[in-house]
Amino acid sequence: MKALWFDGTLALREVEAPRPVPGEALVRVRLAGICGTDREILKGYSGFRGILGHEFVGEVVESAEKKWLGKRVVGEINVVCGDCDWCRRGLGRHCPQRTVVGIVNRPGAFAEFLALPVRNLHAVPATMPDEVAVFAEPVAAAAEILEQFPLAAGTRAAVLGDGRLGLLVAQVLRRAGACVTLLGKHGWKLDLARSWGLEAARVGEEALPRTSFPVVVEATGSPAGLDEALRLVEPRGTVVMKSTFRQPAVFDTAKLVVDEVKIVGSRCGNFGVALDLVGSGQVRVAALVSKVFPLEAGLEAFDYMERTHCLKVLLAVGAQKAASG
Amino acid sequence: MKALWFDGTLALREVEAPRPVPGEALVRVRLAGICGTDREILKGYSGFRGILGHEFVGEVVESAEKKWLGKRVVGEINVVCGDCDWCRRGLGRHCPQRTVVGIVNRPGAFAEFLALPVRNLHAVPATMPDEVAVFAEPVAAAAEILEQFPLAAGTRAAVLGDGRLGLLVAQVLRRAGACVTLLGKHGWKLDLARSWGLEAARVGEEALPRTSFPVVVEATGSPAGLDEALRLVEPRGTVVMKSTFRQPAVFDTAKLVVDEVKIVGSRCGNFGVALDLVGSGQVRVAALVSKVFPLEAGLEAFDYMERTHCLKVLLAVGAQKAASG
Repeated sequence: MKALWFDGTLALREVEAPRPVPGEALVRVRLAGICGTDREILKGYSGFRGILGHEFVGEVVESAEKKWLGKRVVGEINVVCGDCDWCRRGLGRHCPQRTVVGIVNRPGAFAEFLALPVRNLHAVPATMPDEVAVFAEPVAAAAEILEQFPLAAGTRAAVLGDGRLGLLVAQVLRRAGACVTLLGKHGWKLDLARSWGLEAARVGEEALPRTSFPVVVEATGSPAGLDEALRLVEPRGTVVMKSTFRQPAVFDTAKLVVDEVKIVGSRCGNFGVALDLVGSGQVRVAALVSKVFPLEAGLEAFDYMERTHCLKVLLAVGAQKAASG
Repeated sequence: MKALWFDGTLALREVEAPRPVPGEALVRVRLAGICGTDREILKGYSGFRGILGHEFVGEVVESAEKKWLGKRVVGEINVVCGDCDWCRRGLGRHCPQRTVVGIVNRPGAFAEFLALPVRNLHAVPATMPDEVAVFAEPVAAAAEILEQFPLAAGTRAAVLGDGRLGLLVAQVLRRAGACVTLLGKHGWKLDLARSWGLEAARVGEEALPRTSFPVVVEATGSPAGLDEALRLVEPRGTVVMKSTFRQPAVFDTAKLVVDEVKIVGSRCGNFGVALDLVGSGQVRVAALVSKVFPLEAGLEAFDYMERTHCLKVLLAVGAQKAASG
């Protein structure tokens, strides 16, 4: 099968299709999304080598559990032991034995096929387009914030970063009842947020009604984001850190200590919640799709993301190609 | 009066005694403690200029409220407006108008006299020696951790750093029912902790029964401490950061995000709680006093701290001098 393989450089390769082990299904990938983490892996993040990609929607073509055959699915990216303390506490995402699709010791979704444990699969409702379902993973990651701490209705929250993740997080927090201000650097992305009824402003803009927030979500994808988030958060407030990147962050700990701020790292979330949010239209994703490339043009897709002001770039595989390419 | 004054260099100076404004008492300092923050101020932390020092016990010599006259007191270091949102919420320590004794825009305690609002004073029980009462401020700072988040009995907690603050934090957490391991680099300090019945080990020691902890308190006083604390904390765990220093910290945010760790900045605490803890002997402080210098030998005292393996160094002022000098 064809796959986008990274071993220090990214290349389209012909590789053997995966062979599912017991408990796994074979999924034919239909559509996959390129994420900031994929681009960080190209810079060395996680030290991953193999098939990239962890955002996908596909169709089950092999499974010992017959009910899955032919089903359209999305899949949780953490493949866990199911037996350790973490897994038993329902926190398998922190299982020390885990592999992670396209990130840690497990082939990813930028390929024609993918093997994944059946227990990782979520069926996609028949009425939900692939272009929506493919956002299950990043929307789940955005919604994870709400699982980690309660957000009282009316809480003023800033989302720092107007990229893909920031635009999803802003919608999720608003849905939870927060008064959200999206802060970014790109007029057209801020305008998109405004078209959804969100308050949006340029970082550092003096016109902000208030310049400190009890909750700030860092979604800049940049090591400089943490210091900026700390500048925006009020004493005793919380900075939620969503970005993953390779370089270490440098920040002023005096602000953290003197203002008794919390920084909360936040990663993967619940796919069921995410499918509900995108299915009901409470989180809008269609406008985030900037361009769809066929898998074979994967290198061009990555290049497009580097060169162009864009949001989400998708890779169409198999049956999807003709429709989207 | 004599005072230790910092204006880029530290010097003993003859300065005017403070004149209390309405609401303030005049306190004759008896004994003061040198803190890591004082040493950081000498390196540029907080940009402070003036009389250093914020840990003290003294005697009220002037006050419009007659009940305070002649009382031995310790004093909260944050001088607040009393009227803003923060003050009304009981979080005056975060009042944006505040001054801070010996740290921000207010003369400190390394002097013969100090003016402080009466509402900042706490009377010291008659039976409590000055050498114990002078620890009210750092013990309050240690106990602040418990105000910020509940620590379930039996929680395994690591305290990173075997200096003054680490030795206090370890005792406070044990008192709260945690199973505490003190991690440090100095055999004699670890032995002191062991003599109090605490578990103690060298940082990086392989003999540790468990190498990850749900709670890690960073009390190293060094920018490298945060990365080390993150190495020790388990997924979904909490790192409490107590150190204040001038340099920014550099740390691996991937660990924070992927393991969904919390970092909680923690600063000043409740003096009433602290006086109870030291008065009842639940937190032992006497063994932390390495040497007492007279105020006039303040430069020598700072020098002693730089050159010598020591814990707390005190400055005796006025009546205390003859006894301790």
